[in-house]
Amino acid sequence: MKILAIDTSNRPLSVAVLEDATVLAAITVTVHQKHAEYLLPEIERLLAMADLKPTDLDRVVVAAGPGSYTGIRIAVTTAKTLAATLNLDLVAVSSLATLAANIPVEGALVAPMFDARNQNVFAGLYRIKAGVPHPVIADAHVNVTAFLKAVGEYAEPIWFLGDAAHFDDLIHTTISAATPAVSPWLNLPQVATIGLLGQHRTPVQDVDRFVPNYLRLTQAEAEWRAKNPGEDNASYVEKV
Amino acid sequence: MKILAIDTSNRPLSVAVLEDATVLAAITVTVHQKHAEYLLPEIERLLAMADLKPTDLDRVVVAAGPGSYTGIRIAVTTAKTLAATLNLDLVAVSSLATLAANIPVEGALVAPMFDARNQNVFAGLYRIKAGVPHPVIADAHVNVTAFLKAVGEYAEPIWFLGDAAHFDDLIHTTISAATPAVSPWLNLPQVATIGLLGQHRTPVQDVDRFVPNYLRLTQAEAEWRAKNPGEDNASYVEKV
Repeated sequence: MKILAIDTSNRPLSVAVLEDATVLAAITVTVHQKHAEYLLPEIERLLAMADLKPTDLDRVVVAAGPGSYTGIRIAVTTAKTLAATLNLDLVAVSSLATLAANIPVEGALVAPMFDARNQNVFAGLYRIKAGVPHPVIADAHVNVTAFLKAVGEYAEPIWFLGDAAHFDDLIHTTISAATPAVSPWLNLPQVATIGLLGQHRTPVQDVDRFVPNYLRLTQAEAEWRAKNPGEDNASYVEKV
Repeated sequence: MKILAIDTSNRPLSVAVLEDATVLAAITVTVHQKHAEYLLPEIERLLAMADLKPTDLDRVVVAAGPGSYTGIRIAVTTAKTLAATLNLDLVAVSSLATLAANIPVEGALVAPMFDARNQNVFAGLYRIKAGVPHPVIADAHVNVTAFLKAVGEYAEPIWFLGDAAHFDDLIHTTISAATPAVSPWLNLPQVATIGLLGQHRTPVQDVDRFVPNYLRLTQAEAEWRAKNPGEDNASYVEKV
């Protein structure tokens, strides 16, 4: 199975091309967020380096959030467009689960976090089983103190990843068994992992209607909901 | 400190640009071994993506073997040329140590292996301390059974990486506490790690005279030595 994996949900832009579990080519750029400008050219270049044509692909796997609104939209829109035009399977993976998969320790509890400002985080808690992170506390947009309190209920060592360093003092006063990530690259999503995680997942049924997992409302949606209290959850994207 | 890290010592071609512990950009291609053709253009492109000029660099870190003769020569020659012309520090890192650094488990024993054919391996045993692999059994070109016997003396869990899967049966009959690498990407060198490992090392004193760590003789050198038994170890490169 030939897989294209993409992630622009946070600061890094990452693209990988895999054949089953083998990484053929992968690039990560963290310097600036020219995601819209760089993503398609990088996909084309990596496919060429891997001696593949876009039509050789079977599946596109995308990190569908949480993270930056714009970044998520760029990756998800690109993935949907490729899936629709090339007739590929589309699979979405949590951007937090991807980070959790960096910890290769069987049975470990991993808490990946993205700083969402104002003492909020996008975060979840995962248990590693056979190399795959399984959610223990679901991904959420949550106050960091509340998240750490929930995580602290588990009286065992916990691996904090991602932007956890922004909350280092708070983590170490709250959680006695916090395990710091020893290598800085463990805090970066490994795009090859997105491809691997997406390999055995069930593809999205309706590619056209697939929406990312922002985990919080945009300001525009929040304002629209305040003005339209009777509308259901799904209708914002279709109405606006 | 702005660092260029390169590794073509085995099948993957990897280039990374770092600023201190932050990865600015990194690429890995495993498809084919067009290392000589791809390496310089990739270095130029990654520097451009990171908004850096070659003259902005402070240090070049190279995976200096063991691995493929040709691959090691390409990376080391490129690194030496850049260091000499741009007046950069040159630092060499073991290609096996780089792989060992993939395991973020404090105190873990890690055995990275490259298949050297005919039941031989390039392999070493490392202990992870504060995220850095420290040699326990020095890198060597060795018969795989002899290596596993030496490693088996350590009665604790051991992480086998790299081409260990080629010797899976042998490892599991010899070592009771072998820990398989759960994610396939753990078996690939992370070029960012090469940069990180090289960050605090003492640079090579004499860049011009620096030679890679092949760990075995080329056929040409073996034949030359057979014909010139009186020569010392260092003289082959200079004489030929």
